[in-house]
Amino acid sequence: MNKIITIGRQFGSGGRELGKRLAELLGWAYYDNEIITQIANRTDLAESYVKQILESNPVASFPITIGQTLYTSVNSGIDQATNIYVEQSNIITEMADKSDCVIVGRCADYILRDRNPFKIFVYASMQSRVDRCRSKDEKSDVLTDRMLLNKIRKIDRQRAKYYMFYTGYKWGEMRNYDICINTTNASIKDVAKALVKMLQPEEQTK
Amino acid sequence: MNKIITIGRQFGSGGRELGKRLAELLGWAYYDNEIITQIANRTDLAESYVKQILESNPVASFPITIGQTLYTSVNSGIDQATNIYVEQSNIITEMADKSDCVIVGRCADYILRDRNPFKIFVYASMQSRVDRCRSKDEKSDVLTDRMLLNKIRKIDRQRAKYYMFYTGYKWGEMRNYDICINTTNASIKDVAKALVKMLQPEEQTK
Repeated sequence: MNKIITIGRQFGSGGRELGKRLAELLGWAYYDNEIITQIANRTDLAESYVKQILESNPVASFPITIGQTLYTSVNSGIDQATNIYVEQSNIITEMADKSDCVIVGRCADYILRDRNPFKIFVYASMQSRVDRCRSKDEKSDVLTDRMLLNKIRKIDRQRAKYYMFYTGYKWGEMRNYDICINTTNASIKDVAKALVKMLQPEEQTK
Repeated sequence: MNKIITIGRQFGSGGRELGKRLAELLGWAYYDNEIITQIANRTDLAESYVKQILESNPVASFPITIGQTLYTSVNSGIDQATNIYVEQSNIITEMADKSDCVIVGRCADYILRDRNPFKIFVYASMQSRVDRCRSKDEKSDVLTDRMLLNKIRKIDRQRAKYYMFYTGYKWGEMRNYDICINTTNASIKDVAKALVKMLQPEEQTK
């Protein structure tokens, strides 16, 4: 079975950078936006629309289990979101079948739970997330600190709702992960190297 | 300023083993039961009594801040526990003054908060904690699984109450730590080596 790392992350905590660095150091595939492109290709929906659906809150507030539920929605919005989620699950499973990989977000830890992925959660203080957003994304310049803070909180709330809706678990709950890393005072480069050492203690890596 | 690692840990999760290994790899001092011996020496109380006080629940359920409170207790039990806590705080501060060190438990993360310690929390699934207790402590053999499970839960509850009472913070809350490590499927030896790499990325260690 291929080796898999999944990364859940608070917005602005550097989870994506950590994922990329890990994939590079390990020589594994890295999947993030590629998944959206694939969904768009398969469903004939625009990438921007798929992204919007995946980032919006599921309407209902109770968890459902795809394939085991008798729940049939009359709300086409939920249907659309659910179809996209199912397609996403298929794509993530296929990607994990193909090679060792690092997957950021997208409930991958839950979708691939039978394959025993190494599950990371990345978090940081609000101030360091504001600072990281400013340093990584020029578009943040037009936002005041308060606006940026509200944006961060909103995206986190969406991620938590999305995760709860599709998995039934609380997003970012420590016990659901193998390791939780606070990047507030950390060098993500050093964290990535240390994690490689943890995952491949005896092997030489690049 | 000396470098400090503090380790909070669920009972049976291997936090003490991790602390010992880290101290050994880094060549730093390691403090755990030594603190109790020192308190006993300074207060003229028996070590077993100090240990019992430190492991029992503080009676009141609200946080107090030593040195900043006008609260004067008429309950000598609380007074005794508070005196021991103050003595413990002094000893921990002195130890941190002396050399680089690893300190397990005892609210050291809070007591030394101004010295910017690297704060670790160690946790694991209940089953792996039961297994670890059985493998590390022969006395566990006389306990049924249910009894051992109740013991683990009780000690965790005591740690949480103790921590809340003296620090005002929730014990084991992710955001209060730099890294949280699930030892359920991990080799503590490998985790220790990886953490050393994270803390001393450029240095050669033993």
